Amino acid sequence: MSTRRAFLSTAGAASAFVWIPKGIKGYSAADLRAFSADGSVKPGISKWDLDTPALCLDLDAMERNVATMQAALKRNGLPSRPHAKTHRCAAIARYQLSTGSIGICCAKLTEAEAFFAADIAPIMMTTSNPAPQKIRRAMALRKQNPQFIQAVDEEPNARDLSAAAKEAGVVADVVIDVAVGTRSGIPAGAGALALAKVIDTLPNLKLRGLLSYDGSGQHVKGFAARKAHTLEAIEANAATQAAMKKAGLNVEIFSGGGTGTYNIMHLVPGFSDVQVGSYLFMDMQYLAIGGEDGNEVYKDFAPSLTVTTTIMNNRFPGLLTTDAGTKALTLNKPNPGVVGEPGMDYTAGSDEFGQIRVTEATRTYKIGDKMEVIVPHCDPVVNEYDQIYGIRKDRVEVVWPVTARGKSQ
Amino acid sequence: MSTRRAFLSTAGAASAFVWIPKGIKGYSAADLRAFSADGSVKPGISKWDLDTPALCLDLDAMERNVATMQAALKRNGLPSRPHAKTHRCAAIARYQLSTGSIGICCAKLTEAEAFFAADIAPIMMTTSNPAPQKIRRAMALRKQNPQFIQAVDEEPNARDLSAAAKEAGVVADVVIDVAVGTRSGIPAGAGALALAKVIDTLPNLKLRGLLSYDGSGQHVKGFAARKAHTLEAIEANAATQAAMKKAGLNVEIFSGGGTGTYNIMHLVPGFSDVQVGSYLFMDMQYLAIGGEDGNEVYKDFAPSLTVTTTIMNNRFPGLLTTDAGTKALTLNKPNPGVVGEPGMDYTAGSDEFGQIRVTEATRTYKIGDKMEVIVPHCDPVVNEYDQIYGIRKDRVEVVWPVTARGKSQ
Repeated sequence: MSTRRAFLSTAGAASAFVWIPKGIKGYSAADLRAFSADGSVKPGISKWDLDTPALCLDLDAMERNVATMQAALKRNGLPSRPHAKTHRCAAIARYQLSTGSIGICCAKLTEAEAFFAADIAPIMMTTSNPAPQKIRRAMALRKQNPQFIQAVDEEPNARDLSAAAKEAGVVADVVIDVAVGTRSGIPAGAGALALAKVIDTLPNLKLRGLLSYDGSGQHVKGFAARKAHTLEAIEANAATQAAMKKAGLNVEIFSGGGTGTYNIMHLVPGFSDVQVGSYLFMDMQYLAIGGEDGNEVYKDFAPSLTVTTTIMNNRFPGLLTTDAGTKALTLNKPNPGVVGEPGMDYTAGSDEFGQIRVTEATRTYKIGDKMEVIVPHCDPVVNEYDQIYGIRKDRVEVVWPVTARGKSQ
Repeated sequence: MSTRRAFLSTAGAASAFVWIPKGIKGYSAADLRAFSADGSVKPGISKWDLDTPALCLDLDAMERNVATMQAALKRNGLPSRPHAKTHRCAAIARYQLSTGSIGICCAKLTEAEAFFAADIAPIMMTTSNPAPQKIRRAMALRKQNPQFIQAVDEEPNARDLSAAAKEAGVVADVVIDVAVGTRSGIPAGAGALALAKVIDTLPNLKLRGLLSYDGSGQHVKGFAARKAHTLEAIEANAATQAAMKKAGLNVEIFSGGGTGTYNIMHLVPGFSDVQVGSYLFMDMQYLAIGGEDGNEVYKDFAPSLTVTTTIMNNRFPGLLTTDAGTKALTLNKPNPGVVGEPGMDYTAGSDEFGQIRVTEATRTYKIGDKMEVIVPHCDPVVNEYDQIYGIRKDRVEVVWPVTARGKSQ
């Protein structure tokens, strides 16, 4: 509870007063599209006039987050290759590429296909594709898109990929997914090196290097603990990279890391780029990990992604019901953070409704009033929505489709 | 753990052998659409040939569930008005209406708009619309669709609705949402009666009765406890209904209940129809509530909704990684149930990956192998998908769009 309050205070969220104009209109995305055909919105539409629940992105905050990340990575000599699974939005991918990122990562083949259909080309698929049809589709995508790179983590799959690449008439770029932890990838060491050597002999594959993403490392609390965990967890992978290099194999890519470890990965010998994602948006999960300055709250990046919601019931003491439940905010923890109201605890446990336990409130909330919450975990929340409203100074500037929404195959 | 095993055993899921053919193809929805323009699929496509994660509905099981429900409600003299928030699928709504349901319920205005656009007319919106633009849209929908009924739970909103109905040139059908518990609606008693009397005087509203949905009652474990809880919780609402009737107000609708209480609601005097939803699909949550026969597992309806998933990693002892994580299965509890493998505990905690702790397995799972899981909670899982594959005897019979996917405003 004290930690949640600290987040909300730090997130500039504890200001005692949230300005919500009178005369809330409840505009739908269709209303806004009717105002403008090109996705831009005529000035003057307040985010408080949007129909709720609406997924809102503070563009100033997001742009500052990108600038902060790019400056920090530049200081450390590493480029970013952001993970697009976070935003699933071609407009945001385009912004990342225009501000210095060297490419994007995709976790799912349908996601990669959707981004390429939206003219995003430098794509690294970080997950292997074990099904025959998917292998063929990946190689068909590679044929259209020479900048497509495919992850692989076992010899039979590498052989199938090479055969499919041959069928498609290409030599396909691949990276080996080397495990950190026990989720995906081949364990570091002799097996990974042997796989690299096999791939190097396959006629229709071109080895580009390796991936080593440490999912569990991102949310270790406290910078010192996170740094120690991260460097220890990747030690065997770094040794594998060195062995691959010594064996004359291509290791130009040695990619991994994320928003929690962006300022750690440059300490790993041979590392090539950082797969940051959540830095754009932030969320209650990342606010909780603690910063390099020793603070309990991670302040390197500012929360930019919120959901606006309407009060549906205020009749029961100490409780408010809202219109944003599991389908709008997911069940991720920590709970969504109500902006400006550190004395409220929001749970999104009903499919269609949120419920707030109110310990303290800065004002009285009536039925029909709106509020704004910081999302619990950005990736799955974005995936619930068809569009992101780009907001600047509380006004809607643009409506972006979530290009790869639901592309989970 | 023992309970989870009991579910899986009872769900016909513990058969030691799950038949998965060789040569899995990984067909996408687009592949299937290419086979057939009308949504029907040429015979012979196995569900195991679908790209994963795929949302699969066993049509035989669903049809049996509907028949069971309709027969039980008929015995008890109550019709069903199923909640379409569960499936968000026009094809399924059409099936429900064709098998005796008197209408559908919608929780969100955009959901109701989407169903009406798909030619589903008898719609009762069970949630109020407090925003001005939404009130107008609801009345615009009423103008097009005379079978639309709107919930209302406070006097200012009733007056706004009447004004908007006048603007639209209609007299709109409304029901009062009377609270059971502390989520939505006006508390039962004098306030609710007074609201009903006000509505009865408003020129552009026609009072049809009241709603009383008890969300917390549905999942009370054990039939006797559930029955006692339900009848006690709705007592004040039944008294309000009686007082409305005595005051000469229209109470033809007194609607509520759900899959957990379908065989209880007929005991409430004046009750008119049951808002069942999950009975179609079932899920791990409902399997846990216990049946009227005293069994720990609720067997009145059979699980029909599953997600197929592919093994992505099998290298770490006692662990399997799959391609269905939070975005495919949500974080609802109880955990997804692996069909045929009661010794596996599946968590969908990663955005893109599932992880299984294996205590016992009936066979060895290799990378690329598939399995099938019963969904943890049907409503939010359906909302992650653009289509439902209708399966009969393991073959794809039809591909249904999730008509109102993401319609959470």
